[in-house]
Amino acid sequence: MKHFSLSFKGSKLIILDQTKLPRQTKYKTIRNLKQVYEAIKKLQVRGAPLIGVFAGYGLYVGIKNKKINSRENFIRETSKIANYLKSARPTAVNLAWALDRIYNKVLGNKTKTVSSLKEIVKNEAKRIHQEDIMLCEKMGKHGQRLIKSGDSILTHCNTGFLATSGKGTALSIIYRAFKEYSDIQVYATETRPLLQGARLTCWELMSRRLKTTLITDSMVGFLMQKNKIDKVIVGADRITKAGDVANKIGTYNIAVLCKYHKIPFYIAAPSSTFDLSLNKESQIPIEQRNPEEVKKIGNRLIAPEKVKAWNPAFDITPAKLITAIITEKKVIYPPFKKNIGSFLNNMSKFL
Amino acid sequence: MKHFSLSFKGSKLIILDQTKLPRQTKYKTIRNLKQVYEAIKKLQVRGAPLIGVFAGYGLYVGIKNKKINSRENFIRETSKIANYLKSARPTAVNLAWALDRIYNKVLGNKTKTVSSLKEIVKNEAKRIHQEDIMLCEKMGKHGQRLIKSGDSILTHCNTGFLATSGKGTALSIIYRAFKEYSDIQVYATETRPLLQGARLTCWELMSRRLKTTLITDSMVGFLMQKNKIDKVIVGADRITKAGDVANKIGTYNIAVLCKYHKIPFYIAAPSSTFDLSLNKESQIPIEQRNPEEVKKIGNRLIAPEKVKAWNPAFDITPAKLITAIITEKKVIYPPFKKNIGSFLNNMSKFL
Repeated sequence: MKHFSLSFKGSKLIILDQTKLPRQTKYKTIRNLKQVYEAIKKLQVRGAPLIGVFAGYGLYVGIKNKKINSRENFIRETSKIANYLKSARPTAVNLAWALDRIYNKVLGNKTKTVSSLKEIVKNEAKRIHQEDIMLCEKMGKHGQRLIKSGDSILTHCNTGFLATSGKGTALSIIYRAFKEYSDIQVYATETRPLLQGARLTCWELMSRRLKTTLITDSMVGFLMQKNKIDKVIVGADRITKAGDVANKIGTYNIAVLCKYHKIPFYIAAPSSTFDLSLNKESQIPIEQRNPEEVKKIGNRLIAPEKVKAWNPAFDITPAKLITAIITEKKVIYPPFKKNIGSFLNNMSKFL
Repeated sequence: MKHFSLSFKGSKLIILDQTKLPRQTKYKTIRNLKQVYEAIKKLQVRGAPLIGVFAGYGLYVGIKNKKINSRENFIRETSKIANYLKSARPTAVNLAWALDRIYNKVLGNKTKTVSSLKEIVKNEAKRIHQEDIMLCEKMGKHGQRLIKSGDSILTHCNTGFLATSGKGTALSIIYRAFKEYSDIQVYATETRPLLQGARLTCWELMSRRLKTTLITDSMVGFLMQKNKIDKVIVGADRITKAGDVANKIGTYNIAVLCKYHKIPFYIAAPSSTFDLSLNKESQIPIEQRNPEEVKKIGNRLIAPEKVKAWNPAFDITPAKLITAIITEKKVIYPPFKKNIGSFLNNMSKFL
């Protein structure tokens, strides 16, 4: 069986429980709203684009069996569920983006019957899913041109078919390049505290037969000093108008190390990752997770029980450290303020 | 009971098994040469200065009960044991330094009887031990002047009373400063793969009631970006004449991040850490440890069983990233080539 991160067939929503990887490949059917929320909160489903797709279906799961007697109540209920799901994780923009999109679709059809509105929710969720698959393909195509035969590429966290409903963001590029050049290789950082690199990226890359080497986050600089890395590609959870990027904690360390070693540092993200409401990177909400995640690995305590720990899930990489942002429509280069502005203004041209 | 890393009383050598910390505080009596070797190899005893002290006593443990019938055989046996112990870990210079020192002492007394030579080995090992305690005090004294009230200090790996037979190298400075300024605080990196920061440094600092926060190695940059770090102090395993420093993997990441954020980056190490035989940093032997240490945490596999992993135990920080080197005799500032040269030439002045 070819593994997948999420499936929705005949209204049955199934996810791969990513907290169990790589030791267990366990699929789980999501039957109610509480399970949707928990799956996002506990990172059974993770990766900014996948969370968006999953939340869309999740909204449908939450509303489909509800007895609702009026359009007004349906709209109110949709809004309530959307806000509840948004609260599961604050940083990735895709979650709110997908839920708002469905809610707006409902609002735009408010003269329809309740049962039609349920269908509208389902179909919009499906459309987001289909688009996500296509976005991955397109990012792969644009980004692939930046890769050369023999390249050694470092990546952080997980941005592949486990992070999206398609082939991935950063990893989609690597998969596409690998078809062209069988001699490329990937270094995956383990990505503490939750080890998405060690657990998920290594598992994915090996399942696709890519040459993969695992390192701890602390080894990035030494590897670069030894000229072992040609380029870095990572994903993004939210990007400001100015090109500042929120991504998995540790991304900023790597970006600074790239600058020092003059190594290209690429972001791969669909255009839905841009958040036009943000002027400054300091406006991006950074999710603070339970300090126990730092003090434990799995359930094993690795530090004194009473020590204080800091656990931001994301960090912010300023635009000046970024070589280019690879989207589904084009590769955006600096100056980012100007080029992101015109990119977003002209989005319709690319559609 | 006040905890200690090592004790030698009435010829009984006891160590605190650091692989068991912080969950168990288990002391172990070392009775034979094999246990000495294993304790170093498996990091039950670790930290460059402590390894040196322990190896000195270890040499005595190895030789004291041996039936040796001539001075010549005693010298040959001493050399054999020293070489065996040196092979346990290649990077820290203190191990070889302590063993060579005792061997040379034996050579200088080769007209003595075998039983006198045994006493000479024991006494030289004790002298190294006493000196190490004193060195820690003196590093603390010199380094403390660099710390200000309210400072937030980041450190990596473990460099305290668990890494030496005294109060530590980098941590000795912090302990001393803490006596002066009760408002300082420490951020400890967890130090993957073997988690010396999470397991040992947090345990040590908390046992001394210092305000301590644990972070993953991947969080260093973000913490600095938020202006939460005033200075960084770490130890060293070997320093070249030019001031290039081999230290725990991850040190180089931090040094580059300091440079980028204009944060002082200090090395604390006794003068025995300088290796005059090395002109270039590339001549420092870097210990490659078992990749399983990266793929596992404790005994728990955190990555696919078959993935390749890289596991250098140390990295090299070039002199140009270092603000100053704090020794037991003085604080050495750049230009390092010149100043380390004159420091080592004038060492006798400081004695």
